[in-house]
Amino acid sequence: MPQRMPHRMPQTRWFASQTASTGVNSWSSRTHTCGELRSSHTGEKVTLCGWVQYKRHGLFIILRDFGGLTQILIPQQESMHRVKECLSDVPVESVIKVVGTVQQRPPGQENKDMVTGQIEVSAESVEILNTCKKLPFEIKDFVKKSESLRMQYRYLDLRSSQMQRNLRLRSELVMKMREYLCNLHGFVDVETPTLFKRTPGGAKEFLVPSRDPGRFYSLPQSPQQFKQLLMVAGVDRYFQIARCYRDEGSKPDRQPEFTQVDIEMSFVDQCGIMALVEGLLQHSWPKENGIVEVPFKRMTYEEAMRDYGVDKPDTRFDMKLMDVSEVFYSTNVGFLQSALSESRGTIQTICVPNGGTLFTRKDMDLLKQKAAQFNQEVTTFQIKADGSIKSPLKKLLSVSTVEELIKKTKAKAGDLLLIAAGSVQTVRPLLGSLRLQCADLLESHAVALRDPSVFHFLWVLDFPLFLPKDECPEELEAAHHPFTAPHPEDTDYMYTEPCRVRGQHYDLVLNGSEIGGGSIRIHRAAEQLHVLKNILKEDPSLLTHLLEALNSGAPPHGGIALGLDRLVAIIVGASSIRDVIAFPKSFRGHDLMSQAPDCVSEEELDSYHISVKWPKEKKTVLPAEETL
Amino acid sequence: MPQRMPHRMPQTRWFASQTASTGVNSWSSRTHTCGELRSSHTGEKVTLCGWVQYKRHGLFIILRDFGGLTQILIPQQESMHRVKECLSDVPVESVIKVVGTVQQRPPGQENKDMVTGQIEVSAESVEILNTCKKLPFEIKDFVKKSESLRMQYRYLDLRSSQMQRNLRLRSELVMKMREYLCNLHGFVDVETPTLFKRTPGGAKEFLVPSRDPGRFYSLPQSPQQFKQLLMVAGVDRYFQIARCYRDEGSKPDRQPEFTQVDIEMSFVDQCGIMALVEGLLQHSWPKENGIVEVPFKRMTYEEAMRDYGVDKPDTRFDMKLMDVSEVFYSTNVGFLQSALSESRGTIQTICVPNGGTLFTRKDMDLLKQKAAQFNQEVTTFQIKADGSIKSPLKKLLSVSTVEELIKKTKAKAGDLLLIAAGSVQTVRPLLGSLRLQCADLLESHAVALRDPSVFHFLWVLDFPLFLPKDECPEELEAAHHPFTAPHPEDTDYMYTEPCRVRGQHYDLVLNGSEIGGGSIRIHRAAEQLHVLKNILKEDPSLLTHLLEALNSGAPPHGGIALGLDRLVAIIVGASSIRDVIAFPKSFRGHDLMSQAPDCVSEEELDSYHISVKWPKEKKTVLPAEETL
Repeated sequence: MPQRMPHRMPQTRWFASQTASTGVNSWSSRTHTCGELRSSHTGEKVTLCGWVQYKRHGLFIILRDFGGLTQILIPQQESMHRVKECLSDVPVESVIKVVGTVQQRPPGQENKDMVTGQIEVSAESVEILNTCKKLPFEIKDFVKKSESLRMQYRYLDLRSSQMQRNLRLRSELVMKMREYLCNLHGFVDVETPTLFKRTPGGAKEFLVPSRDPGRFYSLPQSPQQFKQLLMVAGVDRYFQIARCYRDEGSKPDRQPEFTQVDIEMSFVDQCGIMALVEGLLQHSWPKENGIVEVPFKRMTYEEAMRDYGVDKPDTRFDMKLMDVSEVFYSTNVGFLQSALSESRGTIQTICVPNGGTLFTRKDMDLLKQKAAQFNQEVTTFQIKADGSIKSPLKKLLSVSTVEELIKKTKAKAGDLLLIAAGSVQTVRPLLGSLRLQCADLLESHAVALRDPSVFHFLWVLDFPLFLPKDECPEELEAAHHPFTAPHPEDTDYMYTEPCRVRGQHYDLVLNGSEIGGGSIRIHRAAEQLHVLKNILKEDPSLLTHLLEALNSGAPPHGGIALGLDRLVAIIVGASSIRDVIAFPKSFRGHDLMSQAPDCVSEEELDSYHISVKWPKEKKTVLPAEETL
Repeated sequence: MPQRMPHRMPQTRWFASQTASTGVNSWSSRTHTCGELRSSHTGEKVTLCGWVQYKRHGLFIILRDFGGLTQILIPQQESMHRVKECLSDVPVESVIKVVGTVQQRPPGQENKDMVTGQIEVSAESVEILNTCKKLPFEIKDFVKKSESLRMQYRYLDLRSSQMQRNLRLRSELVMKMREYLCNLHGFVDVETPTLFKRTPGGAKEFLVPSRDPGRFYSLPQSPQQFKQLLMVAGVDRYFQIARCYRDEGSKPDRQPEFTQVDIEMSFVDQCGIMALVEGLLQHSWPKENGIVEVPFKRMTYEEAMRDYGVDKPDTRFDMKLMDVSEVFYSTNVGFLQSALSESRGTIQTICVPNGGTLFTRKDMDLLKQKAAQFNQEVTTFQIKADGSIKSPLKKLLSVSTVEELIKKTKAKAGDLLLIAAGSVQTVRPLLGSLRLQCADLLESHAVALRDPSVFHFLWVLDFPLFLPKDECPEELEAAHHPFTAPHPEDTDYMYTEPCRVRGQHYDLVLNGSEIGGGSIRIHRAAEQLHVLKNILKEDPSLLTHLLEALNSGAPPHGGIALGLDRLVAIIVGASSIRDVIAFPKSFRGHDLMSQAPDCVSEEELDSYHISVKWPKEKKTVLPAEETL
């Protein structure tokens, strides 16, 4: 590219003078993007810059930039032989600048699938800005690449129209969120530190060695403490598109660094935060994805578990859990009776419409395998097209029991009942999981169950505030975090039966994925101390600064954090959040492009007063990263 | 605060129904902020929430929130004794909610210094939302606190009106920048990873141990590689308000994490980027700080060094360096002659207007001490009010030489000349530094030299691309970074005399502070390889991914990074960037509120395969953090 230095060479006019003063072409050497030209531009002299997408018979070049594709006509006259040669010889994916005139394509040669398909640009001069020397794969949307190859050459992968769209949509969505929060509602964008102190129980926090021997910063999982301190500081309304860190090792679809839309405000209640978030999503939702209806549906945690067996129900389809215990009170089938005699024992079912006719033996095996993962069994009960029954229970149940079961579940010919028996705590999650698996299976049999263009938002409310610890059920842990305020109806139980207390916590669920969660916080020091010390048995000295802050005039406050990566992934229909992050890590946390993390010298470690403790036995070679 | 749960208790209306649907009061339990009420609100019933700023004679309370102050009238009637008691007893800085009616203040009691000074709110009911139990200092702007105390109780320090203003101005500035980049010019906000690979020579990068033994991520100093890769990816225009990390130990006014406005675009030249930045600052500049005139002044590096002795000149005042070598060609004063006989030897001076009469002996000593820090001497030459000379040179110089010196420097009676002799490389920085010190001294003598409300932007251009290494002058290092493209006039020197090559680098200077820097980048792999391998003698294998990317169709591109913290500090007139960062670290990199960095358990270190190497000799106790 010819570089120009007007302050030295005032005779050279700089690019912007020939282009727009605003818009995507300002200050650029192009006059238009490759997606901009239409019939109305016919006769205009234009300059395009972009990548050679492909060449056709020495007659055309298709030029690409982020805006789209434009057909460039290669001149065939002898007088233009240099331009012809240049355009014919240039390798695919090279970067060129073409000056030419827009012309209507000859009748019959228009391309209706291309937004610029009415025109072509007759090249008059060309400049090769950079020659493409080497490509590991073709930059075409239809060429399938392994994900590890895509990650290794991410800068090429991002050239695909889908990835371009994902990154741009994400940027626009965030911009609209900022307008809503900052311009319409007076929120203040405050950046909080990421080099912080280890939080109590923050086992998933990355460490950062400091130059003070034995002292480490920690990369926090969220700005939770800071957002609360900002409320104590009187900032009133805070938001931040916050980078957060979580070291979870190898979890699919989790990233060691991720982004949340972090919001906190003072003098607000739970409904205020919910209305704020509903307005936020309505305002920022991409137009092409339809209109977001508010208010969102609301459901208690108890209702969600009862009807869907999960705290983040996919409400785009029915197949709710049904309690059929009473159908079986009188049977003497052993495993059913023993389930009913358990504490909180139950027999429940889901009815899969047409599952009886559509599902193959293999499908049924998959369902049984899923149950086995839960250390449970599921009993199938198929109703054939002719109304006959196929089920292990068939021989054991009386005709009237079978009739009652069908009546109670409203099962029709061709349906499939999946029956699980046991305690409520085990049966619900099992059937909740089978329900989702059945949805996948039905869709694999071409049943249109979940419309990908439909978005079901749902608030889940009234979570328990404390849960028994897995490893030690007589001890309690915070269901979400120790700063959540109790439900006002349950405050008395805080001192008598903490496990009965519901929290003022709200989860936002979209199409069965949790995309956000928040709460009204405890704003009084005595209550916070009671939770930390008496209920959770944690050392409150780690949070001295927060407790002191609550004693220095803390306003009532609450907030929410939305998972931006997941939200964008759902909007664009991506199967993984890696498709909406510019440079994601592999599922083992590696950057396959640069090979991070990497070794560093002893000398560098010395300045941080640390040394590597090599494992005693060399591990066998780790599996390749193919399966991201 | 009474918590309400409408989904359970539909009869309870929630706060927002009584307040605005947009603006700073949406979803809030207040109807107005404490800065909002005017005479026109007289008679309105309002709800205010805020902090008790102070109490006056049991008659008034001044209530504060981020919006301002409002006077609350304490009712004196017996029927209102509960409200009276409550308001009289509540400790300062407690959080309360007051419902009352706006009334005009009695004639003569208006307060013109208070925007709400025409009115007061006659309290009808009050609710104590949180009692303030303890305060380490008073929340009044005029109460001086030590900076370490401010940092320890940052959540209280942030309640001051100045800190509130700083945080809000920063948020608004960034929002306008985003509008300019994203909405007006098609830039895409792309988040890039902060867990990355160590960059070559990245000695100031924090390390983050991974769960892979011996492997570390690095927190990068800037997204430089990613922004270039995004251009190769065809993103065309990228920006990010990027968190960056630099481990510099204890440097005043540096923070281990800081924020830059990071910009990159394709198909652009140096003037394009400069015009973009000029437009950006013009668009986002706070209205109350006046209008930004564009284009900014431009100066070459050589001009800056020649006239100001520094590459970031403060152009708000004159006092330029003057070469007076020829005045002294004929003298035989030893140290002057020996300076002139040096390679690139020179005698230069600055003329301090009225320095001869204003500066005290102590001031003169300070100037000499500064010179001693440079291992040099400065010769003073005072012209008294009566025209007589006071200088160590007086006895040594001829009358004609003195006359010529005064003529050449245009020094007037009362002025002070500071003369330095030596090589150009040493004389310029010394006089550049003395020039700034003299400005401070003149201002300490009440000379209005630099108007704090005036902003002088300046581009500095044509920096050398490579510099000799301090420790080994025959080797070269990149003056800025190894990705800067050479000046088009100097490309041939790349292969013959690299130290003669100017780079296409531009620094943006505001009032003598560098607030940004950028460059047009090398976009061809061969040129980049030549720089890394042949000129800088670095191992190019560490940048394989970048070199491969340049070979896969990289467009011409360039960009800039603006230091947001410093920019905001200059705008608000803060003496330190700590005043525009919500939760800054001390100069030793500590968080004085939470005591980060902190110790972690052996067990936690084990999962990262590291152990602490304690220094053999226990260091003496480190000095207290008082002197931030």
